[in-house]
Amino acid sequence: MAPTGIGLIGLSTRTSLRPGYWSAVAHLPAVRALQDYEIVAVANSTVESAQKSIDFHGLSGAKAYGNPADIAQDPRVELVVVSVRVGKHFMLAKPALENKKSVFVEWPLGASIAESEELAKLAAANGVETIVGVQGRADPLVVKVKELVTSGKIGRILSTSVMIDSSAVPADAWMQGAEYYLDIKSGGNEFHITFGHFLDSFVHVLGGFADLSALLKSYTTKVPILDSNGQVTQTIHKTAPDHIFVQGTLVSGAIASIAQRKSKSPVDNTGYRWVITGTEGELEVTLPETYWQMSAPERAIRMKLGRGEVQNIDYLTGDDVIEAIVPSFGANVARLYDNFAKGDKENYATFESALETHRLLDRILRSAGWDSV
Amino acid sequence: MAPTGIGLIGLSTRTSLRPGYWSAVAHLPAVRALQDYEIVAVANSTVESAQKSIDFHGLSGAKAYGNPADIAQDPRVELVVVSVRVGKHFMLAKPALENKKSVFVEWPLGASIAESEELAKLAAANGVETIVGVQGRADPLVVKVKELVTSGKIGRILSTSVMIDSSAVPADAWMQGAEYYLDIKSGGNEFHITFGHFLDSFVHVLGGFADLSALLKSYTTKVPILDSNGQVTQTIHKTAPDHIFVQGTLVSGAIASIAQRKSKSPVDNTGYRWVITGTEGELEVTLPETYWQMSAPERAIRMKLGRGEVQNIDYLTGDDVIEAIVPSFGANVARLYDNFAKGDKENYATFESALETHRLLDRILRSAGWDSV
Repeated sequence: MAPTGIGLIGLSTRTSLRPGYWSAVAHLPAVRALQDYEIVAVANSTVESAQKSIDFHGLSGAKAYGNPADIAQDPRVELVVVSVRVGKHFMLAKPALENKKSVFVEWPLGASIAESEELAKLAAANGVETIVGVQGRADPLVVKVKELVTSGKIGRILSTSVMIDSSAVPADAWMQGAEYYLDIKSGGNEFHITFGHFLDSFVHVLGGFADLSALLKSYTTKVPILDSNGQVTQTIHKTAPDHIFVQGTLVSGAIASIAQRKSKSPVDNTGYRWVITGTEGELEVTLPETYWQMSAPERAIRMKLGRGEVQNIDYLTGDDVIEAIVPSFGANVARLYDNFAKGDKENYATFESALETHRLLDRILRSAGWDSV
Repeated sequence: MAPTGIGLIGLSTRTSLRPGYWSAVAHLPAVRALQDYEIVAVANSTVESAQKSIDFHGLSGAKAYGNPADIAQDPRVELVVVSVRVGKHFMLAKPALENKKSVFVEWPLGASIAESEELAKLAAANGVETIVGVQGRADPLVVKVKELVTSGKIGRILSTSVMIDSSAVPADAWMQGAEYYLDIKSGGNEFHITFGHFLDSFVHVLGGFADLSALLKSYTTKVPILDSNGQVTQTIHKTAPDHIFVQGTLVSGAIASIAQRKSKSPVDNTGYRWVITGTEGELEVTLPETYWQMSAPERAIRMKLGRGEVQNIDYLTGDDVIEAIVPSFGANVARLYDNFAKGDKENYATFESALETHRLLDRILRSAGWDSV
């Protein structure tokens, strides 16, 4: 079968941690590792910019476009990938949906709950297959945790407690060009992105909240903005929270606590500690000081049944080549593409299923007395 | 100076984990290790029973009594110690207070918020010095954590997150004669005693809650009662919660999460993990699968300042003889006596200060929709 033709919206020549780098460091290596896909078109804000990226990355067979309508109409394009800042997701994804192309939108889906709902509605109306870039769902670690929970291995789930230190996201400076990340109203900030990625996996494994109460705090409110030379250009008022405490009862009846703090660096050298307690045993997922969704090599699952020994659970099945050939940033993105190609809907998010996470984030905001976004 | 004469109410001949063992394994070794105290009288429900205990434990100078009024009137008794099940605290402490003796009541102070308030009122009215047996306050680990927090070493406190696994308290069986421990209405159960001991230290270090929300669950509701031969005598309906989740804002403005679960055994081999996050660094207190207040030898404090190395904090100052000579159960009880003798009010609880913890426990119950006790 011929590979699926990808029309990639948003590909810069940046390959290190600066605004616009994500496609080049995550999507590009992911797609290149897979036989099922081929990048046939690239759209940037101008044709020239798109052509420059095509040349830079050696995508010789791809066509350059300067707007979302044109790339959506290219007959070779079967899957439009929107990987730019969240504020543009809606306007860039819409033409693709209207042209009945499959669409992959990076997380968050929309910049507001209204945009996310509208996109999901448009996708359904046009009968379009969709993917949302909450790549944690494709992480073999998450797949394994879900399998262990669902199998009843640790019995009926009674409770879950999570301690997160989001110190991998720096609090003392931020990148010029990505100021939106500090703004709660942008819909693409530390709450919606960093916390959202974990929350999506959490709910994917354990189910949604029946009721909850939340406390949000933005303790660091003034953040210097650094240009690419590391010079301070201005200081921005941060409104996105750096502490997110949520407690509630899950639909399953289990009770849950998630306490995301931000220190300079976690005292236990652990970024994520997620404990799931069942009637027969417990699971613990740990990650170092890192981003939840990005395949940290040191991530781990431990299990204890009854009063037995702690077991290290192998979640890489042995034949998992992606972990070996795609760099950390892109490994779970590659798995999303792979799961989509296989039709494995359990292990990637659609617009519809990702919308549930948007709605939950919005409930958390409102429970804490913050405005809906 | 002559040692303070102690009149001990409740001393059985049991020296292993059975109802009535506490005085013999905690108070007795504690007092014997200190020069400042001497047991001059013992009261049990009968004079004969008191005399039997005096003989068994070799307290040759002590007088036997059969009721609380008589021991409270003995002129040699300066400090009456009430160490029996919580349901009898009020009636046994009252004569001592009315006779203007200093009084040490084991935790919990009263079996209800009303009894606790009444005892505090009686103590104040009689101008009596008091101690409550929340011995965690005297633990050098807690003293050190409080010192580190108060000193500003880790900066201004932003948040605190606690994961507790109360699996040291067995869920699958309980001791005949101590059925009250399963009953939320007894005021002396897993919520008021096990959780209460930690909560008292927590608030002692970080201050009280401005607001909170709580979730309580009693998942294990049927508990077999075992006699001293390990035979099941009956099955009791447990009403005390085994899961206690509390989230709120402290009076200081910091936000807090405490998630106490009960598994068969903690997957991280950790009974208590208490993280305190400040603007400049973090503290972590860990204990193995044990009881908070009982000087577990493996308890530890770690500190990380900024992005520096994790430091192990020494909380035993080197000249701490109590840890070496008093068995684990009694070490912090000995420190309470010692702090009382020295007039070090910072490091032991009075009826008045312990009453705050009773009130907080009651707020937690009510927030979770449970009845006040």
